[in-house]
Amino acid sequence: MQDVAKAAGVSLGTVSNVLNHPAKVSPVTAQRVREAIARLGFVRNDAARSLASGSNDSVGMVLADIENSLFIDMAHGAQEAARAAGLNLLLANTTCDMGLQDDYLDVFDQARVTGMLLAPMEDSSAGIARMRSHGRQIVLLNFSPKPGTCCSVLVNNEHVGYLAARHLIDTGRTRLAYVVAHDDYQPVRERRRGVRAAVEEAGARVTLEEIDSVGLTTAHGHLVGRDLAGRKPGDLPDGLVVVADELANGIIHELHTVAGIGVPDQVAVVGCENNRTAGSAAVPLTAVDLPGRAMGREAMRLLMDEVASGERHRHATVVLEPELIIRSSAPR
Amino acid sequence: MQDVAKAAGVSLGTVSNVLNHPAKVSPVTAQRVREAIARLGFVRNDAARSLASGSNDSVGMVLADIENSLFIDMAHGAQEAARAAGLNLLLANTTCDMGLQDDYLDVFDQARVTGMLLAPMEDSSAGIARMRSHGRQIVLLNFSPKPGTCCSVLVNNEHVGYLAARHLIDTGRTRLAYVVAHDDYQPVRERRRGVRAAVEEAGARVTLEEIDSVGLTTAHGHLVGRDLAGRKPGDLPDGLVVVADELANGIIHELHTVAGIGVPDQVAVVGCENNRTAGSAAVPLTAVDLPGRAMGREAMRLLMDEVASGERHRHATVVLEPELIIRSSAPR
Repeated sequence: MQDVAKAAGVSLGTVSNVLNHPAKVSPVTAQRVREAIARLGFVRNDAARSLASGSNDSVGMVLADIENSLFIDMAHGAQEAARAAGLNLLLANTTCDMGLQDDYLDVFDQARVTGMLLAPMEDSSAGIARMRSHGRQIVLLNFSPKPGTCCSVLVNNEHVGYLAARHLIDTGRTRLAYVVAHDDYQPVRERRRGVRAAVEEAGARVTLEEIDSVGLTTAHGHLVGRDLAGRKPGDLPDGLVVVADELANGIIHELHTVAGIGVPDQVAVVGCENNRTAGSAAVPLTAVDLPGRAMGREAMRLLMDEVASGERHRHATVVLEPELIIRSSAPR
Repeated sequence: MQDVAKAAGVSLGTVSNVLNHPAKVSPVTAQRVREAIARLGFVRNDAARSLASGSNDSVGMVLADIENSLFIDMAHGAQEAARAAGLNLLLANTTCDMGLQDDYLDVFDQARVTGMLLAPMEDSSAGIARMRSHGRQIVLLNFSPKPGTCCSVLVNNEHVGYLAARHLIDTGRTRLAYVVAHDDYQPVRERRRGVRAAVEEAGARVTLEEIDSVGLTTAHGHLVGRDLAGRKPGDLPDGLVVVADELANGIIHELHTVAGIGVPDQVAVVGCENNRTAGSAAVPLTAVDLPGRAMGREAMRLLMDEVASGERHRHATVVLEPELIIRSSAPR
């Protein structure tokens, strides 16, 4: 910085003003300083600046799974809101590995980011408490925190399950099944509650069974679909609520394309995410849409509020509502 | 750090050794220091450390488009290699906006990352030169740099076009079309060269036309498909090489599902990416697979080599070969 001041023929304070309070410097002087900076290849040293101020201009977002378009949508929404606030959004992907998640929280903590957004798949209370004990603001996405520990943005996952099951019941299905995997994931358990509520509401004419899948991918769906195709026709459910879209696509492939069990004629299928593949599958998937972009924007808004209000801040939970998108796999 | 030393009853140098050279400290002492650190909520201050050493333990990866699964694959591969080297990978998404790309290069530069990976959609020479002038190592993915300016990892995009067209010719198609958009994108131009080479190789019996699309999405594919469906049957190509998979899926939807022009019977279609939607479309898409994960891993290897060898480093270009994945839209 001294070299820049010397090259531009100004004081150190003027260089600092050009960088931090440009309105205080005349345009001509500012231009001279900027030219000197460009000539010398001087980089404003954020390491030094964040050391002094305790934070930099970035928000760190830790995502459980960038393969899942819900997380990509949350990143888009958060980035829009961050940019509007003059902040940068840095991303880290944990591939659902809690060890990696802890590492990335530490990376952003040590980099002294302005705040963090965390979209985990499992309980992350320990990591959140560690960040907060360092004075680091953190907002949780898509996972309920322990009450009062931090702000969070959730989707009403119980209503996701309810909307899916209710649509099947309203279109005349009576033998429903909820296809699940990963009961350790909060959304999976919450969607079950909604499915059950819709079935109970319908009374004795509608039955519900639960079908366990080994995992949530298309390949796991192939296994479930093959099992179903092997059942006696009377034992086949006529409506499936499938907890994840890829899983649903795999089931539809085995039932409809391989075994010739018509979707939706014999079995109607509803997914619970409305991800990128939902509309382009062999039988386009009716699915409950999760508002990822809005969740990302809301999370940034809560984080900014917490950063700005300091001690006066009160944690908040924002719950966004899902929406049913009707396609061929379970038509009107 | 002094508080930690006091609480653990050791010298400042011992605390520093536990953090930076743990092998020098006895396990018992190290444990005592770590407990004191945990008790005091002490964070190793990377801002201070990166200020001293000029770099931290993170690699910054700037991606043009996290909607495109090629970029997600590159991030996975880079992360695997980074973790294996004890480094963290931080991501930034530019949504194909060159202004945002410049901002994120600056963010990572100012954060003093160990190095950067850049996967752009357009010429980024100015940004790369700016990073290099600050002594920041950077490796380019999926885009040819100006010769000698930095390391790069490429896919042989000419061969992508060649494999796609050659497959159509080998399976008896004679009226080919290359469906393109965004001629400003390097891969689009390179794939065209390969398509042309395959057609020329086949001699006069095979013709080639070029069909311009407004963009690369499924919706743009619907427009192209509708145009094609409106042609007289004799004017219809019998084989399409489509520069992007989503575009191909949109075309197939309009031709096959809407207009009843059979894919592959009347028109065979080959995509040029093999992204996540390729296998699950209405007619599963034959596509040339781009080796994204391997590209990410190679890029990290080149970056680590450059960081480790310093002055002795010589820039290298790694070109990875694509592979044809045959599905129903253009069978054997």
